Amino acid sequence: MSGLARIAVLTVSDRAARGEYPDRGGPAAEEWLRAVIASPAEYRREIVADGADSVAAALRTLADDWGADFIAVTGGTGPAPRDRTPEGVSAVADFDLPGFGEAMRGASLAEVPTAILSRQGAAVRGRTLIVTLPGKPAAIATCLGAVFAAVPYCLDLIGAAHIETDPGRCRAFRPG
Amino acid sequence: MSGLARIAVLTVSDRAARGEYPDRGGPAAEEWLRAVIASPAEYRREIVADGADSVAAALRTLADDWGADFIAVTGGTGPAPRDRTPEGVSAVADFDLPGFGEAMRGASLAEVPTAILSRQGAAVRGRTLIVTLPGKPAAIATCLGAVFAAVPYCLDLIGAAHIETDPGRCRAFRPG
Amino acid sequence: MSGLARIAVLTVSDRAARGEYPDRGGPAAEEWLRAVIASPAEYRREIVADGADSVAAALRTLADDWGADFIAVTGGTGPAPRDRTPEGVSAVADFDLPGFGEAMRGASLAEVPTAILSRQGAAVRGRTLIVTLPGKPAAIATCLGAVFAAVPYCLDLIGAAHIETDPGRCRAFRPG
Repeated sequence: MSGLARIAVLTVSDRAARGEYPDRGGPAAEEWLRAVIASPAEYRREIVADGADSVAAALRTLADDWGADFIAVTGGTGPAPRDRTPEGVSAVADFDLPGFGEAMRGASLAEVPTAILSRQGAAVRGRTLIVTLPGKPAAIATCLGAVFAAVPYCLDLIGAAHIETDPGRCRAFRPG
Repeated sequence: MSGLARIAVLTVSDRAARGEYPDRGGPAAEEWLRAVIASPAEYRREIVADGADSVAAALRTLADDWGADFIAVTGGTGPAPRDRTPEGVSAVADFDLPGFGEAMRGASLAEVPTAILSRQGAAVRGRTLIVTLPGKPAAIATCLGAVFAAVPYCLDLIGAAHIETDPGRCRAFRPG
Repeated sequence: MSGLARIAVLTVSDRAARGEYPDRGGPAAEEWLRAVIASPAEYRREIVADGADSVAAALRTLADDWGADFIAVTGGTGPAPRDRTPEGVSAVADFDLPGFGEAMRGASLAEVPTAILSRQGAAVRGRTLIVTLPGKPAAIATCLGAVFAAVPYCLDLIGAAHIETDPGRCRAFRPG
């Protein structure tokens, strides 16, 4: 509820966590969010290895200890054996918001048929909205672009920080 | 299986249940259903406070005791802390029908980007079909309009009452 | 991972299992798959009665004992009392891929409004991808056509056999 929103970006990637690979998804998500969110916000980025436990632990820390209003998680939402991000989110979620996954897959499907393989979604934990995104920068922009107009009102509803967007980039909608 | 279908509308709202606020969603849903359902039907409306337990108890009474064929639930499907209608439906459901939520969010999304925040859906309990709707009258019409053509055949399949619709308002479809 | 993919088609139908009714869905699914899959593959068809237990047992045999890479299940995904195929899949699934159900319902909805009654979906068990389909041949083609471009890459990701498709019938997509 403070004036300064707390926005976290969590990269989930074994190789990025070990430093074998530069994290491209996390910086791309942060850049997108910094460009679109026009109200005062503090940003934080973390990287964890793949796995339900690592994701769940990082989300608890970001949501409960740091007080994140919005967490964008990038990576680990596919069907490969190490892709366990959805299970990590489920472990800490109060409930899911299925419309986010539907909208993100719908938008991605216009670009690649393999969008249907994504297990992306969104969930609420207390006063924190968590959205899972692909790992590729171009796909991150597509997915955030498909849902972010509804994010400010969602944050209002769950008692998180009030945020404003740059209407030239994303027109936030709040029902009258 | 009788000739008289039993159609219930359940409003979920703390303020309406306390009488602080006129229930607009329930009457709007009933009016829509009365206009569209062309075969004999008995209608019943109830109002309960928000919460999974209150919703689940009301659904059990309407489905099991009154013998409702179709229950439209309005309100409580968003992400706010008091919005627990989906949890109440889940507590009494035999199974979900995910296509209803997808179709209702898809139709609402053409009107407002915040449609993705809705946790609306449908579920079957015994011989009763339960569909959750928004609270606002205009959105109720959008959502019922997006799914109702499939409702008569669904009632046939679950062994509920046979209903007919006014084809000028909603053309019920039954596969040949 | 061998050169020969193992493709199973499981028909779920009380009447077909008792021999009272010729199975049309299974042959239609197999014919579609044989026409579209251009790389070497072995095909197997089974028929079981409706029910979560019968479906789960057949899927375990096909996935674990026979080593199926892809299982198409036809029938039992609706809301009727004997339609318990989704429960059988859930019992053996490591996780669901919700985008398959969304895409199949979306494609079917362009043909019939009752598409929203379908509980079709997809799930992964170990190195096996399981997709549930309607029982009617025309609807099977619609649904496989809506998702199959993503199937070869999905099989790659889960460590199943590499398959190629006939691009004139279905253009498989593998991100670069």
